Amino acid sequence: MNINTDKAKEFCQRLFYAYGFSKEDSLIITDVLIRADLYGIESHGIHRLVRYDQEITSGQVDIKAVWEIIHETGISAVIDAKKMMGQVASVNAMKLAIEKAKVSGCAMITVRNSNHYGIASYYTEMAADNDLIGICMTNTEAICVPTFGAQAMTGTNAMALAMPASPYHFSFDASTTVVPRGKLEVYRKNSEPLPENWALDANGIPSQDAALVIDNIIAKAGGGIAPLGGLGTLHGGHKGYGLSVIVDLFSAVLSGGLTSNYVNRKADHTGICHFFMAIDYGIFGDKTAIKNGMSKFLQEIRESKKAEGCDRIYTHGEKSTQMMKERVTGQIPVNEKTLDEMNNIAKRLGVEGIYQT
Amino acid sequence: MNINTDKAKEFCQRLFYAYGFSKEDSLIITDVLIRADLYGIESHGIHRLVRYDQEITSGQVDIKAVWEIIHETGISAVIDAKKMMGQVASVNAMKLAIEKAKVSGCAMITVRNSNHYGIASYYTEMAADNDLIGICMTNTEAICVPTFGAQAMTGTNAMALAMPASPYHFSFDASTTVVPRGKLEVYRKNSEPLPENWALDANGIPSQDAALVIDNIIAKAGGGIAPLGGLGTLHGGHKGYGLSVIVDLFSAVLSGGLTSNYVNRKADHTGICHFFMAIDYGIFGDKTAIKNGMSKFLQEIRESKKAEGCDRIYTHGEKSTQMMKERVTGQIPVNEKTLDEMNNIAKRLGVEGIYQT
Repeated sequence: MNINTDKAKEFCQRLFYAYGFSKEDSLIITDVLIRADLYGIESHGIHRLVRYDQEITSGQVDIKAVWEIIHETGISAVIDAKKMMGQVASVNAMKLAIEKAKVSGCAMITVRNSNHYGIASYYTEMAADNDLIGICMTNTEAICVPTFGAQAMTGTNAMALAMPASPYHFSFDASTTVVPRGKLEVYRKNSEPLPENWALDANGIPSQDAALVIDNIIAKAGGGIAPLGGLGTLHGGHKGYGLSVIVDLFSAVLSGGLTSNYVNRKADHTGICHFFMAIDYGIFGDKTAIKNGMSKFLQEIRESKKAEGCDRIYTHGEKSTQMMKERVTGQIPVNEKTLDEMNNIAKRLGVEGIYQT
Repeated sequence: MNINTDKAKEFCQRLFYAYGFSKEDSLIITDVLIRADLYGIESHGIHRLVRYDQEITSGQVDIKAVWEIIHETGISAVIDAKKMMGQVASVNAMKLAIEKAKVSGCAMITVRNSNHYGIASYYTEMAADNDLIGICMTNTEAICVPTFGAQAMTGTNAMALAMPASPYHFSFDASTTVVPRGKLEVYRKNSEPLPENWALDANGIPSQDAALVIDNIIAKAGGGIAPLGGLGTLHGGHKGYGLSVIVDLFSAVLSGGLTSNYVNRKADHTGICHFFMAIDYGIFGDKTAIKNGMSKFLQEIRESKKAEGCDRIYTHGEKSTQMMKERVTGQIPVNEKTLDEMNNIAKRLGVEGIYQT
């Protein structure tokens, strides 16, 4: 099923406004959410409304929260988001990083006590649209098992980086797990066994049973997903494990917040932490020459020899840019069950629903 | 075979001094080289002398080079290393990053026209020993094939990060390929097939033939090693590919140097580029509290439940610290063939050789 993009935006805005968010914050949340659908990352788009509804009604999200700046220098800030909606905290934190980087050359903002922030590339591309390098990271509840372990200690812990380039930004956005939890859900839904090397049961024994692994994650019963590089060390799982620790360092340790192994342990508090960085790459010389250097390198990669059976090499950010061109004046896909759930929420809040186009 | 650690140091110093390096530079190169052996990373230790001899005699390394600072701000510098020995450029670049970070809170130094720099963790730990976060990256000649490609476009492109913690620093140091080239050499030597998902032939078809893949890399005939996450996208190879591009961005694009696909294309010039960063994590508040937070998180990981059949979870930097304790006052391993080659070099340079202990 498809819904009109503009109508989806209007629907999200009136929904968030009905919860009690300001017009400005409703617009921010909507824009981040719909961007995910425009980029083809439906797992982080309008489908999340149902989960956000739970977080708002349970008190994990505080609609009226005002953040507190705990520590600040010309190149840094530590923010206590006070259970603010993740998108609101994040857009404002990246704005602050951009402002500071324009003055000081670079800036790092770390945020504690926030919530799920949607797609990371939204924030890194805010920096890239300001002709800066943007970096961001977030922890999540623990789903990733360290090498030789049997218990999830780090989260999906995605890293994102955007660098201005022509004809499109280089925009990298990836979890440090071999796959995010959403991928396991797809295998469960299709009753297919997981690929080898992806997941572990509660005793740390490799498992291809998606339902078992997901249920264990939800129940915090042990086991979970392998780091990028897979189980053990043969394919570099210890590297993905290290990268996931680095995400917790920048988001949680430097903000004085909760590391992934403590996130989402309370009904009314997730404690998710983020990190945002902006770098004015003019601190390394002529910006036009540097940007052209990046564009040239990316083009050389795209034009390099293809593997037999492949007709195209993508650079990061290319697919999402193309998808957005198609969808921004058109439609975004939504599944029927989610549409019903969203309309039930709308009904409860006393606002107009949204319908298939 | 084993050689005495102190004697190995003395040998390296007199060798580099005999080439024409200053006493100070000979000491720097030796210290980086021997540290790799102390950490148990023999591929980057004294065994490299033979390869460095080739680079020095071929003119890829300029013994008398003096670097030029191309661009500089309070938080950054771009350095043209003028074919300097990689270790000398790197120790001095990280010193500069540390100095600037102590004043400004953070600093980023990018270096072009350098050479192989040995183990990355040497430099990041210089920062950690100064109670700073240290980050470094380097490109290399192209060995890593982008997702859906058939031609290596990025290098081993290791990323390293060290963060002070007790009882040992967190010290991450990993290539963004599924394995470095040295791992393939081991399979060739043992005439064993490579694990699936590691490498490609010149047509981009998966190959388990170590000799074929290595020969193709050396001849620049196509194919190469998969990014971290492996071939295709199933296990996240597109993530490793993106990380390798990020390393080229920071080391080569920001320094105006050669990206991996141009590195080591001339007999007398490698063009290798590096990136060094130091962050005074005091810009995020109380350093003791932050360091304690990191130590606590790492300890929780080490103490978390082990997988069946595993009795220990390591955090990054733990193994190398323990290995160094054993070896620093003892011996380091060296193979017989390399020892002979080293003694031949010593003979040619007219200095005393080194012998088994």
